Amino acid sequence: MRPVICEVAPRDGFQSIADPLPTAEKIAIIRALADAGCPRIEFGSFVSPKAIPQMADIAEIAAAVKDVPARLSALVPNVRGAENALAAGVEEVVYVFSVSETHNRNNVRQSVAQSLEGLEKVKAALPASVLLRVDLGTSFDCPFDGTVPRTAVLDAVASVAAIAPEAEIGLCDTTGRANPFEVAARFSAAMAIGAASGNGWAFHGHDTYGQGVANALAAWSVGVRVFDTAAAGLGGCPFAPGATGNTATEDLVFAFNEGGLDTGIDLAALLAVADRIAALPGGVTGSHLRIVPRDRVA
Amino acid sequence: MRPVICEVAPRDGFQSIADPLPTAEKIAIIRALADAGCPRIEFGSFVSPKAIPQMADIAEIAAAVKDVPARLSALVPNVRGAENALAAGVEEVVYVFSVSETHNRNNVRQSVAQSLEGLEKVKAALPASVLLRVDLGTSFDCPFDGTVPRTAVLDAVASVAAIAPEAEIGLCDTTGRANPFEVAARFSAAMAIGAASGNGWAFHGHDTYGQGVANALAAWSVGVRVFDTAAAGLGGCPFAPGATGNTATEDLVFAFNEGGLDTGIDLAALLAVADRIAALPGGVTGSHLRIVPRDRVA
Repeated sequence: MRPVICEVAPRDGFQSIADPLPTAEKIAIIRALADAGCPRIEFGSFVSPKAIPQMADIAEIAAAVKDVPARLSALVPNVRGAENALAAGVEEVVYVFSVSETHNRNNVRQSVAQSLEGLEKVKAALPASVLLRVDLGTSFDCPFDGTVPRTAVLDAVASVAAIAPEAEIGLCDTTGRANPFEVAARFSAAMAIGAASGNGWAFHGHDTYGQGVANALAAWSVGVRVFDTAAAGLGGCPFAPGATGNTATEDLVFAFNEGGLDTGIDLAALLAVADRIAALPGGVTGSHLRIVPRDRVA
Repeated sequence: MRPVICEVAPRDGFQSIADPLPTAEKIAIIRALADAGCPRIEFGSFVSPKAIPQMADIAEIAAAVKDVPARLSALVPNVRGAENALAAGVEEVVYVFSVSETHNRNNVRQSVAQSLEGLEKVKAALPASVLLRVDLGTSFDCPFDGTVPRTAVLDAVASVAAIAPEAEIGLCDTTGRANPFEVAARFSAAMAIGAASGNGWAFHGHDTYGQGVANALAAWSVGVRVFDTAAAGLGGCPFAPGATGNTATEDLVFAFNEGGLDTGIDLAALLAVADRIAALPGGVTGSHLRIVPRDRVA
């Protein structure tokens, strides 16, 4: 199986821009990402517009992008979000909570146990035709508590695998502070648990500490085949001005495509979209490929 | 064997700064790098001051840093440079040429065959007590000719191994355009040739295309244990303003140290030196670790 890029700029990236973007611009970028060959796109979140006003137009976007040639997913924090996603015809929902209790309380105001109950409700609300992904935030490092114990991650994986044995499980390096050796070790251990249930696996990484591509390839080396990245590295790092956020899609696609593992993404077309994203007012980006001469990269 | 960092900011980095730095500042930085735990330092080049005026004070520096607690090496382009290095008491010389004929002619005005003759002369000039490293520039990509054929690199490795079976051979990603899969593949093939002769191996990488840490870890995964990096990523990329140059020492040390493979380098002390290097007027740097909150990195 070749590497599968899940483009998250429209979700993890757009929500990082304080002033909501025009809906038409969001739709155009999602379409352009699909046209560049991104096989999967996380196109937004079904969340309360009071909590994240940047996503207030999510249903409108869902209706407008239904025909794009990519597998589309949307993040949901709870069963209400899942119901709204279903009503909008979304084919894959991403339920997210954090392994770190402190981060989970800060992010979704719940304990991990409560979030697992939420997962049961979300799963019960989904028809079999809708795909489920479960993202485990802070699977390596927590901005409040530091290194997250490996046992806490494996406990969460076991709980998710028991509740949703068909789900794809994402281990998320929320802060970008994971290192490649630990990424390989945690996925190996998690996949041993998930192997019995048939769960799929994904890695969501950030490049804040310069480990983005290396961490993704460490996950690849132990069998992970799905990688979340954001074109132009949109997302930034809220606690480090100037630091990069999400691993830039173009940087990881370069590694795979040049290495003979075709992602199916046209790097020149992707870079054109990345340029458009980097030009969005208020966005913080971080990319290596975007700033080298274009004739040497694609 | 644990990973061994060879710090090259005083050579590859300082020569990238147009106006020569004060000799005392260079010496202070070399001392600080050694004090931070850098086990090896490439501290400069014995080259014509007409060609590279930034290195005109190399003999003075060599005399001043003899007692630092690190293995010190100096680059030499020819036998005259080697003789000057010997006269200065250097314990390791680094002879460099490029696998790409075009780049080699641009860089040292010689064919590869002539450079191999030069290696024979340098080797003949060295007493057994002086270590020899041979750096093969453009071992992956040439700024003029693009991808360098793997056969050309392996031919060069075989020639070097025949001439200098005791030398450490560095495969250098001069442009930063190598990808991790090719780095692993080329080292595996090169090490199979070198295995018969007992050559050591090193990887010299740049982060221009965002592959710096990933490329180094790919080399590590096939058995390479010596890595050239520059504190603060000093070096820049002459053909891409804003792009990073040498892989930042702190970014790679973070990967190894956090991954349980202690480099012996104190990251907090290293970052202090990196800050000093980044403050040098005229220097172009690129580092991830330097711009995130210091309490989260060391």
